[in-house]
Amino acid sequence: MNPEQLLDCERVAIQVAIGAGAMMRTARQAGRLEISTKDFSKDLVTETDKQVERSVFDRIRQHFPNHRFIGEESRFEGIGGEKGLTSEPTWIIDPIDGTMNFVHNNPHTCVSIALAVGGQPVVGVVYGPFLDKLYTARSGAGARCNGQPISARKNCRQLSDALVIAEPGIFKDPDDRRRDLANINAIVWKSHGLRCNGSAALQLCCLAEGSADALWHWGIHVWDYAAGGLILTEAGGVVLDTQGGPVDWCRRRVIGASSLELGQELSATLVEHLEFERD
Amino acid sequence: MNPEQLLDCERVAIQVAIGAGAMMRTARQAGRLEISTKDFSKDLVTETDKQVERSVFDRIRQHFPNHRFIGEESRFEGIGGEKGLTSEPTWIIDPIDGTMNFVHNNPHTCVSIALAVGGQPVVGVVYGPFLDKLYTARSGAGARCNGQPISARKNCRQLSDALVIAEPGIFKDPDDRRRDLANINAIVWKSHGLRCNGSAALQLCCLAEGSADALWHWGIHVWDYAAGGLILTEAGGVVLDTQGGPVDWCRRRVIGASSLELGQELSATLVEHLEFERD
Repeated sequence: MNPEQLLDCERVAIQVAIGAGAMMRTARQAGRLEISTKDFSKDLVTETDKQVERSVFDRIRQHFPNHRFIGEESRFEGIGGEKGLTSEPTWIIDPIDGTMNFVHNNPHTCVSIALAVGGQPVVGVVYGPFLDKLYTARSGAGARCNGQPISARKNCRQLSDALVIAEPGIFKDPDDRRRDLANINAIVWKSHGLRCNGSAALQLCCLAEGSADALWHWGIHVWDYAAGGLILTEAGGVVLDTQGGPVDWCRRRVIGASSLELGQELSATLVEHLEFERD
Repeated sequence: MNPEQLLDCERVAIQVAIGAGAMMRTARQAGRLEISTKDFSKDLVTETDKQVERSVFDRIRQHFPNHRFIGEESRFEGIGGEKGLTSEPTWIIDPIDGTMNFVHNNPHTCVSIALAVGGQPVVGVVYGPFLDKLYTARSGAGARCNGQPISARKNCRQLSDALVIAEPGIFKDPDDRRRDLANINAIVWKSHGLRCNGSAALQLCCLAEGSADALWHWGIHVWDYAAGGLILTEAGGVVLDTQGGPVDWCRRRVIGASSLELGQELSATLVEHLEFERD
């Protein structure tokens, strides 16, 4: 894809994200959200998630009919999404990241849109309509929030100087829960403290804008971190596999950090490594 | 204090809070903050904390020369604050709640100003200058954010329907750390999830505006929760002692909840109860 095509893709992604954010606002203002659960009680999905995903797919397809699509809700709804990354241009969409926040009237929820080419994100857009924050990145062109360049706190190189993001409370398996808390216990006391806003995409953007320094996630999906991951790396930070190597976008585990040294120390300090079925 | 006097106190508190917020903005824009630690490495204080507190005390004293003052930093700096609540009108001030966020360029930091009369908060103002959010409450007059009435999610009556706020990572004693994580383990899996923004005053305001439902804190000080506690109760929520009875504002432990039933369930679910030296 040449630079002009990339710019065109970013422009479409921004337009579509802003439209999706407007749908989220309208749905919340209308009041009662229709909520159902997926495979367990904390995995919520609303009618708005599905409507937004359908709309985002449709609008992007009008511009790029030959591209592939992966979406959080399309597995369930026959919206026409696919599974797994290939080298083909593929749009990766989370219509509402932070659905739990969305239904709780908490502002930390967003739409996340990435385009991957050759298996790597090249465009990332994360829009939080209730925060009025639009994070964007294009491969090689840096990261921005509401049009202004942002950067990770690259001089944060050790846990003892880092504000860390983690999200306890999302697992249903008792052994996963025990291992999750073991990791938190291993990390949190060594750091400057723990923060959690409940949206993986927005958490990566926090690192990108330098308001926190490191995070790790297990069981996450590619649509939760492809856009935010690019925004972070374009802001000067890093994404890694939880065991310290290059991130595998479909392996459902990630470390984000404001510097490579910090990411590696976080990886080395984790005491448990969880595995999930690939995306 | 009659209603007119109370209104006058609230008006002064709001003016002073907005001035304090402007000082925080200026300090952050100026770049390098002078940071020192208090009794251990996570307990930071900046020169801005001290300057803001001095300014807030001075400005309120001009209006109410006979009132008493308690402030986070005045113990250290001879700013002229006192210790402990009496029945006299007493201003209770945290110049920067969320100092760790403040130094990390994270927006979740605020000034917290309460007035207590008869040992109970009657005016509460929490201003987050980087969030552009001004939360206010006056005894019997309800709670507002930026002038608009707010209310807690009063129909949230059980943990299994609640978004919970907790802040792991703030203790230095190994036994406190173990007990802290035991409580998190007891609560988090029963709830809709854990959130943490790193400012106790703003966390109470989240409950007051219905974006989260319950929280507990140990080792907190009266200046961290007097203003936010009033804002929450005026928004229809409750504050309790961690063992379920009425809150004791100097006992350094608190539960906040959107309903009494939820607060009592949270209290009954905690497995450890910590004690700290009184304020």
